Amino acid sequence: MSERRPLSDRFSRRGLLLGGAAAGIGAAGATVAHRLVGEEPVPANAAPPVHGTRTVAFHGPRQAGVETPPQAHACFVALDLESGVDAEGVGRLLRLLSDDAARLGAGEAPLADTEPELAAVPARLTTTFGFGPGLVERVDPGAVPTWLAPLPEFDHDDLRPEWGQADLLLQVCADDPVTVSHAARMLVKDARAFARVAWTQTGFRRAHGSQPDGTTMRNLMGQVDGSINPRPGTDEFERLVWGSGGPAWLDGGTSLVLRRIATDLDTWDELDRPGREAVIGRRVADGAPLTGGEERDDVDLDATDDSGLPVIPSFAHVRRARTDDPGQRIFRRGYNYDLRDMLDGSGEAGLVFASFQADPVRQFVPIQQRLDELDLLNEWVTAVGSAVFAIPPGCEEGDYVGRSLVEG
Amino acid sequence: MSERRPLSDRFSRRGLLLGGAAAGIGAAGATVAHRLVGEEPVPANAAPPVHGTRTVAFHGPRQAGVETPPQAHACFVALDLESGVDAEGVGRLLRLLSDDAARLGAGEAPLADTEPELAAVPARLTTTFGFGPGLVERVDPGAVPTWLAPLPEFDHDDLRPEWGQADLLLQVCADDPVTVSHAARMLVKDARAFARVAWTQTGFRRAHGSQPDGTTMRNLMGQVDGSINPRPGTDEFERLVWGSGGPAWLDGGTSLVLRRIATDLDTWDELDRPGREAVIGRRVADGAPLTGGEERDDVDLDATDDSGLPVIPSFAHVRRARTDDPGQRIFRRGYNYDLRDMLDGSGEAGLVFASFQADPVRQFVPIQQRLDELDLLNEWVTAVGSAVFAIPPGCEEGDYVGRSLVEG
Ligand code: HEM
Ligand code: HEM
Repeated sequence: MSERRPLSDRFSRRGLLLGGAAAGIGAAGATVAHRLVGEEPVPANAAPPVHGTRTVAFHGPRQAGVETPPQAHACFVALDLESGVDAEGVGRLLRLLSDDAARLGAGEAPLADTEPELAAVPARLTTTFGFGPGLVERVDPGAVPTWLAPLPEFDHDDLRPEWGQADLLLQVCADDPVTVSHAARMLVKDARAFARVAWTQTGFRRAHGSQPDGTTMRNLMGQVDGSINPRPGTDEFERLVWGSGGPAWLDGGTSLVLRRIATDLDTWDELDRPGREAVIGRRVADGAPLTGGEERDDVDLDATDDSGLPVIPSFAHVRRARTDDPGQRIFRRGYNYDLRDMLDGSGEAGLVFASFQADPVRQFVPIQQRLDELDLLNEWVTAVGSAVFAIPPGCEEGDYVGRSLVEG
Repeated sequence: MSERRPLSDRFSRRGLLLGGAAAGIGAAGATVAHRLVGEEPVPANAAPPVHGTRTVAFHGPRQAGVETPPQAHACFVALDLESGVDAEGVGRLLRLLSDDAARLGAGEAPLADTEPELAAVPARLTTTFGFGPGLVERVDPGAVPTWLAPLPEFDHDDLRPEWGQADLLLQVCADDPVTVSHAARMLVKDARAFARVAWTQTGFRRAHGSQPDGTTMRNLMGQVDGSINPRPGTDEFERLVWGSGGPAWLDGGTSLVLRRIATDLDTWDELDRPGREAVIGRRVADGAPLTGGEERDDVDLDATDDSGLPVIPSFAHVRRARTDDPGQRIFRRGYNYDLRDMLDGSGEAGLVFASFQADPVRQFVPIQQRLDELDLLNEWVTAVGSAVFAIPPGCEEGDYVGRSLVEG
């Protein structure tokens, strides 16, 4: 779902810093940084570039992990607050976790880290905080945005409570799976006195650098997934994602809809290629619309074939998902999951669907309603988990994420 | 566990080919290939290098995936043959899977692949075949190597039958997690008429390119893991790993011991740094022996401190693991695992321990016995799964892995 933008453009906002704690790889790291921003030629016979030193700044007016070009690995950790934790406790928890997240993102170990060496490879680590209604209520019941509530249950859903709403979400992403595992564990450990884990969902995309930057990912169904998506940095993105859709404490924030969508790959395999293309409305080979053009072109919903039938069928996913209403768009940033190791025989695979939008009720729900009514993809995909989180604004150094809520 | 060898050396044996099917990345791929073998300077302002096109040849006298510098991701798939499958059926299965594995390794889709585009990023994909006693017996009960049997159960084991011995193992490794997921699924699909999945175990190391080539991995306990390991290409490696330890059909092959070792990270966290270092006998910071020197130096077991006590305690893992018997060594090539997504609350993490050696009974068992008797690490690690496989020789183009067994 990443976008093709010039590299310089993509890195200028959050900055591309070198993690000082990544001992022993300074020289190689410096070379890489220059390579990546395209500033300098690479010396002949230089060591292969190292990307573990790359960092994304934690501090800033907006949280990292939304506009950040998607990292290869993600772990979404959902926590529920212990019953005794009040507004002040929430503040202490968020202060602690913000400090941890800032350090981890810089390639430095949090204070209580018992495996500090594992922190030395930040690999673009980001930790994004999301608040469920339960957390906001602990602080101020009047501060809950109207849209911060369970989504309506849709006909095709088969929601399991164990993948449901929680009080606090930590979206931990990095280009290295060891980094993600360690960071998620550290954060959970420091949260332990305040909250317990409700669930975690891990996901992956193509490895960092395995394909040219800007290549749209394919999901496990084999489809190019993420072609049509608002582009960070544009006016449209500002409006759709960062545009205010909630109370003042959320200014500079957004919302996250997280849906665990199980995919029946076995029956999907029975469908032939033309069938697959009709289900989506786009070509499998390159993701281009069935009505012609290139990957990032819109489909032509009015085009008809020789017999006068629409080229994009009425049940096609993209016909149902898209709209002419410029306010009904979302920013998708999901991850594949594949849980073969489960011993219950389920071997479940699918998509950790993640979308950011200013207002989930006005932006996400109408799309999901249209998909629920008529989208042939429903034959193979089923939402088994669903949760909504408010993504508060970012914070400056010394400050913590959520202060605008906790301290009003 | 990878070794520091000159790149040219490391790639010369199996070769570094460009996956022809990796459409659209040909130019970038070519640049990278040259970069990696160090043949040519990289043009200034070249696109960032792409590693998804890198391939490891499937064909050759020995199977890939043993000497291959460990890829970032692994999926070990264990299969049990259906009851009706006889010697001829085993032959057909192996022929089919060898063809699939050769294609997948070259970045080409197997014939029955319904998501062929996912095959276009080989990312050093290797598929290594291992035979359990059940498979060999189907073909010829007299051909089972004496060591191809369950290991003795050790005192500290807590083996669960669901992670136990199986008939056929496919070790699927690549630097891209989507590639591994797709390849494993393809192979299982094609095996479906002959065999069913007993278990799969997925694991990971540091992402490709996140650290300089040749950096030894750290496991989730934070230790440098894999420093002392036979080095592919040396006489010692030839003898210890490829040296004949079985019947003639195994010439050019070896064995794999696969142990699922659950790790109690929570109680490990309670141990301080000096304690951790004493448990292993090496420094956490850089993996160097507590008796001094550098990471890849041997520990000095005779060294004593001021009070005359051994610097490497009697219970230290490396004291127990090492031996002066040059025949009692193994080649370790394991992966971390972290199964947070399990909903049973176990959240188990650990090591998919994998070691290759000519004869597991003569090489692996004595080490494991010493560890079982006295290794303080046992306080935190427990084997919950165990299996042994014969790794047959490789095959040339047009041939299949296991022919020396099936056709005598
Ligand atoms: C496993 C479930 C899903 C799969 C496999 C899937 C797959 C795809 C694919 C292949 C495309 C076309 C390429 C692209 O533009 O990305 C697409 C487009 C899209 N999908 Fe989905 N999708 C899934 C679920 C959803 C859900 C739950 C929503 C939101 C409710 C959604 C919203 C969209 C939107 C807005 C587009 C762009 C439509 C356009 O403007 O052309 N998708 N999806
Ligand atoms: C989760 C379980 C285990 C952990 C965390 C672990 C960790 C380590 C560490 C940190 C080292 C020192 C660095 C190195 O040389 O790699 C080491 C060495 C070693 N380990 Fe393990 N190990 C585990 C299980 C095993 C098992 C099951 C065996 C074999 C039965 C084994 C055999 C060895 C050997 C042979 C060495 C090298 C000793 C030397 O010659 O210095 N380990 N291990």
